[in-house]
Amino acid sequence: MKNKILIANRGEIAVRIIRAAKELGIETVAVYSLADKDALHVKLADEAVCIGKEKSKESYLNMNAVLSAAVATGCNAIHPGYGFLSENAKFVEMVESIQIKFIGPNSQTIQLIGDKASARSIAKANGVPVVEGSDGILEDVHEAIKIAKKIGYPVMIKATSGGGGKGISIARSDEELMSAFERTQLEALSSFGDKSLYIEKFIESPKHIEIQIMGDAFGNVVHLFERDCSTQRRNQKMIEEAPSPVLNEVLRKKIGQSAVKLAKAINYENAGTMEFLVDPKGNYYFIEMNTRIQVEHPVTELITGVDLVKEQIKVAYGKPLSFKQKDLVILGHAIECRINAEDPSKGFIPTPGKILNVLFPGGNGVRMDTHIYPGYVVPPFYDSMLAKLIVFAPNRKEAIKKMRVALEQFVIEGISTNIEYQYLIMHDLEFIKGQYDTGFIAKFNARYEAKRNE
Amino acid sequence: MKNKILIANRGEIAVRIIRAAKELGIETVAVYSLADKDALHVKLADEAVCIGKEKSKESYLNMNAVLSAAVATGCNAIHPGYGFLSENAKFVEMVESIQIKFIGPNSQTIQLIGDKASARSIAKANGVPVVEGSDGILEDVHEAIKIAKKIGYPVMIKATSGGGGKGISIARSDEELMSAFERTQLEALSSFGDKSLYIEKFIESPKHIEIQIMGDAFGNVVHLFERDCSTQRRNQKMIEEAPSPVLNEVLRKKIGQSAVKLAKAINYENAGTMEFLVDPKGNYYFIEMNTRIQVEHPVTELITGVDLVKEQIKVAYGKPLSFKQKDLVILGHAIECRINAEDPSKGFIPTPGKILNVLFPGGNGVRMDTHIYPGYVVPPFYDSMLAKLIVFAPNRKEAIKKMRVALEQFVIEGISTNIEYQYLIMHDLEFIKGQYDTGFIAKFNARYEAKRNE
Repeated sequence: MKNKILIANRGEIAVRIIRAAKELGIETVAVYSLADKDALHVKLADEAVCIGKEKSKESYLNMNAVLSAAVATGCNAIHPGYGFLSENAKFVEMVESIQIKFIGPNSQTIQLIGDKASARSIAKANGVPVVEGSDGILEDVHEAIKIAKKIGYPVMIKATSGGGGKGISIARSDEELMSAFERTQLEALSSFGDKSLYIEKFIESPKHIEIQIMGDAFGNVVHLFERDCSTQRRNQKMIEEAPSPVLNEVLRKKIGQSAVKLAKAINYENAGTMEFLVDPKGNYYFIEMNTRIQVEHPVTELITGVDLVKEQIKVAYGKPLSFKQKDLVILGHAIECRINAEDPSKGFIPTPGKILNVLFPGGNGVRMDTHIYPGYVVPPFYDSMLAKLIVFAPNRKEAIKKMRVALEQFVIEGISTNIEYQYLIMHDLEFIKGQYDTGFIAKFNARYEAKRNE
Repeated sequence: MKNKILIANRGEIAVRIIRAAKELGIETVAVYSLADKDALHVKLADEAVCIGKEKSKESYLNMNAVLSAAVATGCNAIHPGYGFLSENAKFVEMVESIQIKFIGPNSQTIQLIGDKASARSIAKANGVPVVEGSDGILEDVHEAIKIAKKIGYPVMIKATSGGGGKGISIARSDEELMSAFERTQLEALSSFGDKSLYIEKFIESPKHIEIQIMGDAFGNVVHLFERDCSTQRRNQKMIEEAPSPVLNEVLRKKIGQSAVKLAKAINYENAGTMEFLVDPKGNYYFIEMNTRIQVEHPVTELITGVDLVKEQIKVAYGKPLSFKQKDLVILGHAIECRINAEDPSKGFIPTPGKILNVLFPGGNGVRMDTHIYPGYVVPPFYDSMLAKLIVFAPNRKEAIKKMRVALEQFVIEGISTNIEYQYLIMHDLEFIKGQYDTGFIAKFNARYEAKRNE
């Protein structure tokens, strides 16, 4: 039987997967919604099947439509990309039930590690540190103090129904905790009509560090070092780099080994990512695992020379990993900027519409992963990402300079983008120093707004 | 004094140099002819000066115009790129005389090694093998036989005034030489009105292998391995790759050491390339040296991680080389396809004109060096190269597959190009085997024509 892959996704990641499959000599089938009939992934795949209307729910999230397309075109594998159905255990189970290979871990693994509470207990059982706290709602302030003493100050008191920055307090001592408890309870009650609270260790100035993992069906699990994804706006990553500018060799090895241990404990197959918070003292805490390829996988590809998507496909078809832990070294420094159809001067409002012209940066150490072209109409229904601009250089300083020049030479006409905004971040002293934490973008945006209003 | 570089070139190499300078924080000045007023290098440089009319002789080859532009804009260095004035010792002397740095070797070196006879004798004096032959015109057939006995058969008898494949004979014994001498003399007389002949050792089925060299002002000279540039059409390279598919470690080291020895003998500074012929038995012969950056430098950059153009600039400004021989390893395999505005189905006739639309390949391991954009008008006055498509992969097999996919996804609308022709070469069994020699393209073209006329 000839290998043939259905790509259950759209945009740049669909293009990325098509290229990888083609390089492996494997046929590809694209699926698309009515909004995507002129999309690049439709043009580049060997076949394309329309699976429904514009809204994701009626196309890319429609499991039956995707499965029907796979069966009708004779595919023996499905690559889910990221987002959409990529971490949906039920979908994966359906794929498995019709003897199609899912390019990712199996449904049980996704179920097991996809559940935050279960992932957390597996981590604890394997000696991987997690952010400690109450396992449920606090009975009273005495229980809060008891737990705080156990996990150590500072702690965070959080309203169970909280959100948008409300119903959160930080306490650094018993006294502070006592007053914080009362205050937060009142705020929670008045804001959300629910006074229940829980407690968690407060990680000061954390870095978001994630470890790339690859496993095969033969029990081999290897980590491909870390990515630093601390520049986030409301949990949406904007810039990713590898290696992290703050990790030393010892810590890198420790976190990497923790990630491998956790992955081995669940017999993890295919690509996955363990997310950690790392504090300035080098303490690290497992948060969650993503059981799919990440948007930011190219930075890892550039610093290791491994093609993660090709490796995903090969592993899914039963091949052993093509490298061992000892084969991997960090070859340089890579940075990725996500280029979005959004207007940073108007609260990052999405800016769908027609792209009139484009000029891509290029040359030595510049990689572009994108699905846009002159004349392409960005639909309003999906993620606003237009392109990933990734640079690679011998060190971080040169990589930043390369990214500046690349952003300067990147032109998209017709719609607003965040190209200039990313250019400004590449000139921000805090970013340049490398010690930015997950609070960086909020602070940068305040500076950005102040400057704009000058 | 602030560093500022004038780029005495156009097209993709001007864009390449501008990017490198910008990454180093150095200001750039573009020069352009009337035909290039809308060219990308003009848009990307910090300043731009028009230096004359469309024809190269009246602009890019006009030494005074180039120098005036450099002086008028306060540049303290000139990067010549390749072609045009890049190997013109007189121009370099003029640059030196006004205390502007020439980003390349000094004028004496260019003079010395640029002259073929002098380069040949320096090579011989340093124990670097050259293609042996008569040092001038042969007196008679007896002298021819005497030399043939010394250098060994097979030999080539060539008419001094010959060209276009006429006036050349190959002889494998004294008998063959005697008849060939007479025959070639008659042919030369009737074709060129000049019966003078010379003799040279005939290298059977040679590979064109060139060694990249970098030297600094402190006497450091390092080689960056070889490039295999055997796919040539009338001495015009079409595809370049590194490493060569036929060199083994021992031979690689030997040729590299010969190149370094030769470069050290002439105190070579900056980037340069030693060209060799290599026969199937592993004998190698120095042909000539190019004292400038080559079109095909990106394949070396990809397999070594060294940015050659940045290194050129740093060395010219007095910095020592940023790497030593022992730091360099071959990281993978790179292939470059030159994408030209030409029609392979009509004898490769140039096809200048307006580019209506472009779609560039991209993604993992794909590098594009180009100056074209949608709406760009390719002028008829210069080289027909539109872009260099370069791929990098862990090995040659994967690199070829990647190049196929990249060529398949490379669209240029409005003018004819050789994209499909290159795609066919990437599927040619002889190319895939890697043992193609300098006669490959002639044979491939015959197959190509035959197929077209089927």
